[in-house]
Amino acid sequence: MKVLLVFAHPEPKSLSASLRDVAISELEATGHEVRVSDLYAMGWKSEVDRADFPGLSADERLLPVAASKNAFATGTLTDDVKTEIEKLLWADMLILQFPLWWFTMPAILKGWVDRVFAYGFAYGVGEHSDKRWGDRYGEGTLAGKRAMLIVAAGGWEEHYGPRGVNGPIDDLLFPINHGILYYPGYDVLPPFVTYSTDRFNEPLFEAAAQRLRERMRTVETIEPIPYRRQNGGDYHIPAMELRAGLGAPGAAGFGLHLRESEMKKLAAE
Amino acid sequence: MKVLLVFAHPEPKSLSASLRDVAISELEATGHEVRVSDLYAMGWKSEVDRADFPGLSADERLLPVAASKNAFATGTLTDDVKTEIEKLLWADMLILQFPLWWFTMPAILKGWVDRVFAYGFAYGVGEHSDKRWGDRYGEGTLAGKRAMLIVAAGGWEEHYGPRGVNGPIDDLLFPINHGILYYPGYDVLPPFVTYSTDRFNEPLFEAAAQRLRERMRTVETIEPIPYRRQNGGDYHIPAMELRAGLGAPGAAGFGLHLRESEMKKLAAE
Repeated sequence: MKVLLVFAHPEPKSLSASLRDVAISELEATGHEVRVSDLYAMGWKSEVDRADFPGLSADERLLPVAASKNAFATGTLTDDVKTEIEKLLWADMLILQFPLWWFTMPAILKGWVDRVFAYGFAYGVGEHSDKRWGDRYGEGTLAGKRAMLIVAAGGWEEHYGPRGVNGPIDDLLFPINHGILYYPGYDVLPPFVTYSTDRFNEPLFEAAAQRLRERMRTVETIEPIPYRRQNGGDYHIPAMELRAGLGAPGAAGFGLHLRESEMKKLAAE
Repeated sequence: MKVLLVFAHPEPKSLSASLRDVAISELEATGHEVRVSDLYAMGWKSEVDRADFPGLSADERLLPVAASKNAFATGTLTDDVKTEIEKLLWADMLILQFPLWWFTMPAILKGWVDRVFAYGFAYGVGEHSDKRWGDRYGEGTLAGKRAMLIVAAGGWEEHYGPRGVNGPIDDLLFPINHGILYYPGYDVLPPFVTYSTDRFNEPLFEAAAQRLRERMRTVETIEPIPYRRQNGGDYHIPAMELRAGLGAPGAAGFGLHLRESEMKKLAAE
């Protein structure tokens, strides 16, 4: 596969950078081709602002959705954004790698999403009717491709467990996995997470590296997270509410948006 | 009260800016004092990088946690960050106002959190022992102060409902409300959210403005979200897992971290 790895850590000699190099080596050894967007090294601009829309006249209001739609449609997005879009179209798989800062991605990576995921490319795609509500959540420009996160958390693993005080890691990552990656169509693989990363020593690093190598060897075959397709019949359209009877009785929250049949299969494995 | 409003929208004539002005007017009319950090107008720098730590020598690795700890302890944080910390200490209440981009805050506001919430100030505070795991989640530097979000979502309200395809809005905002605001000690008020904001016309705007005025009149008295205190006995220390018997039977996810007694009281009201 062709793999794009988007990397967001300011230190070239960080533990995250070492893990990135482990991932790249293993992917290449397995026959994959890898390109890297190292956001800090590229001096990536994080903020959506007027400079992103050279077509906007000075007296026009900046409405980000409308400006993004217009710039994508007329091919007037800035060159840095166009280059990232080309990389996304080139790649069969996207990896976002970042340290978990305040329970989500660093600003520079959020700024990559905010700027690169343009209207007409990553959202605002497809027909809106009583049969379909756009090509999103399992459909869209990036459908058929795979994506996954590589995340370094400073806190203890237990603190991110099912009853841990931070909240479960899968729920903390849901707005990214489901809201950013599944939305434009990616099949989202389970994330690779390291915990207590600030306290790593040589043996802990080597154990994590070994686990990461194993994950990288299965990126083509591992089952994606079984999110429900928006237009596959599970949701009322256009309210986009999950139909009664789907999901565990009395359940609420993010877990509703996983297909039970697949969850049972995974639990049985 | 003294209120700091941190605002993150690139357009001074946006709907978000109009709602901000409505909030400020109402707060001032009620006798509160308001200061604003308008991040785009300030040219806020979003990325944590070496420029944030002038004390770091050129051959030293940038470890963000260690660098933040050292810079806060030695008073060598950059002036823009120091100014924001002074505002946070001055204010009795913090409001973060932003459009919901990809189910969370824009990069520029995440960058404000990443840079201003320094080690020793917003995290890494207090004793770590078998009795307490730091001053966090209800305790900390900002304890006794209030905080809330004002959020403009583009999507339909139903899509953010209990069974909506995007996930429930309270769960999407949990990493911010609980992970960013409650963590350093704030009492977190229920968020003020507008939906379908991109389709607002004059009557819809006026209805939202009226609802916002009412919310601003109660900021001093409204009950905070009843998150559990980390060191109050509900969690095992140091695993920080919620004790057996707490939370609804079989429940998982973010809802576990709300006190049931308070939830029942709120539901009965």
